[in-house]
Amino acid sequence: MDGAAVPARPSGLSAYVAVSQALGLTLLLSTGAWLGRYRGGLGWHSALQINVHPLCMVLGMVFLQGDALLVYRVFRNEPKRSTKALHALLHGLALLIALVVIAVFESHRAKGIPNMYSLHSWCGMAAFVLYLLQWLLGCGFFLLPGASFSLRGRYKPQHIFIGIALFALSITSCLLGITEMLLFNIRDSYSRFVPEGVLANTLGVLLVAFGLVVSYVLTRDEWKRPPLAEELALSMDFKTLTEGESPDGGSQ
Amino acid sequence: MDGAAVPARPSGLSAYVAVSQALGLTLLLSTGAWLGRYRGGLGWHSALQINVHPLCMVLGMVFLQGDALLVYRVFRNEPKRSTKALHALLHGLALLIALVVIAVFESHRAKGIPNMYSLHSWCGMAAFVLYLLQWLLGCGFFLLPGASFSLRGRYKPQHIFIGIALFALSITSCLLGITEMLLFNIRDSYSRFVPEGVLANTLGVLLVAFGLVVSYVLTRDEWKRPPLAEELALSMDFKTLTEGESPDGGSQ
Repeated sequence: MDGAAVPARPSGLSAYVAVSQALGLTLLLSTGAWLGRYRGGLGWHSALQINVHPLCMVLGMVFLQGDALLVYRVFRNEPKRSTKALHALLHGLALLIALVVIAVFESHRAKGIPNMYSLHSWCGMAAFVLYLLQWLLGCGFFLLPGASFSLRGRYKPQHIFIGIALFALSITSCLLGITEMLLFNIRDSYSRFVPEGVLANTLGVLLVAFGLVVSYVLTRDEWKRPPLAEELALSMDFKTLTEGESPDGGSQ
Repeated sequence: MDGAAVPARPSGLSAYVAVSQALGLTLLLSTGAWLGRYRGGLGWHSALQINVHPLCMVLGMVFLQGDALLVYRVFRNEPKRSTKALHALLHGLALLIALVVIAVFESHRAKGIPNMYSLHSWCGMAAFVLYLLQWLLGCGFFLLPGASFSLRGRYKPQHIFIGIALFALSITSCLLGITEMLLFNIRDSYSRFVPEGVLANTLGVLLVAFGLVVSYVLTRDEWKRPPLAEELALSMDFKTLTEGESPDGGSQ
């Protein structure tokens, strides 16, 4: 930091981030407990293949996606370029894990069940395809050279809005998946409050809670990442050169 | 307006609001078409009582709630007090219509089905109770006298965040309800892409689209309601008097 004073972390931010991580880990444990205790566990070359799908979606499309969104708040005093690379890396990892969506297609093929007929599949596939597109556009605009400062500045608010919207859509798709799985497997006993139903409902509530805490951290104005001193100086130079808007000068 | 020039409406806002209203009306028509064409229509003292629930939820908890959120953007040049009253009125109307949730309890009682066991009911009831609480707190803080300017200023960002989050949760609950209703009624034919399944899925996609357009309008910085000249003067007076923050001076 060249001896410069590190700006203090805003009060409350660490507590909210800690809660989000505790919720994220609880999500993974609850999903594991549900699949392990009531759905026979995991497997690829067996009828258990379908169970890989919910675990990978909660890990990739929820936990990792949420953490990728949080990096600008958590690593607020690191250079922007490193934070941006970590943001892209975590989203990329989330996408790779979410690719296990093919487990469902494989499992459906083995059982002769058609694909893409349910609202869950429509929402989930839309979330996945748009997430991939958003990642590619994000890399193209913000990581690779080529996009002008003013173009980046115009695209950035859309990138942020779509990012949070896709996170919400991913969580919604998970809730739809939980409901489908319960109604396919325990339709007759679900209304008797059997433990599997209560556990899976609780997983749904935890997913909503994780989404709320992450979105709150992301949208609270005072917690946005302020530009570091050197970024501010650099962006002023660019502004003078281009007479355009500086996307990196503002908080993200 | 005492001869003062009316500030121009930001470019694009009217188009987005028009799209939101077209989507909202299409939502209502699609729900009506689904219930009328495939679920036997509406009725209170019959087995059709359960059908009143989805229509009222789409009308109250989605369309009216969305429109109530938009009033600060649409009536941006009206006095704040009138806009605030309309905001509270539309939310109150949405709540009244959503009260028809009792249709489900009545229908379940008649058929001997337990209540509140599904993830849809957990999310839906949470959305309704928190929405009622948010409305009461909103009236208490912003409509009734009593809350200090600085207290209003501290509560306002929370009120806005929770408002958008509850809107998203309401839409998610509707999607869960659609999935439940389809799996209870057309479980065996759903995977054959029967028209009822495709129509209800399309309704789900329209609900997501309505949520996205409304949220985009609400969160776009340039479209926030700027304080009118007289509000700015008034808030400066209060600021001088109280040395505190002015919640009405900022944009909402």
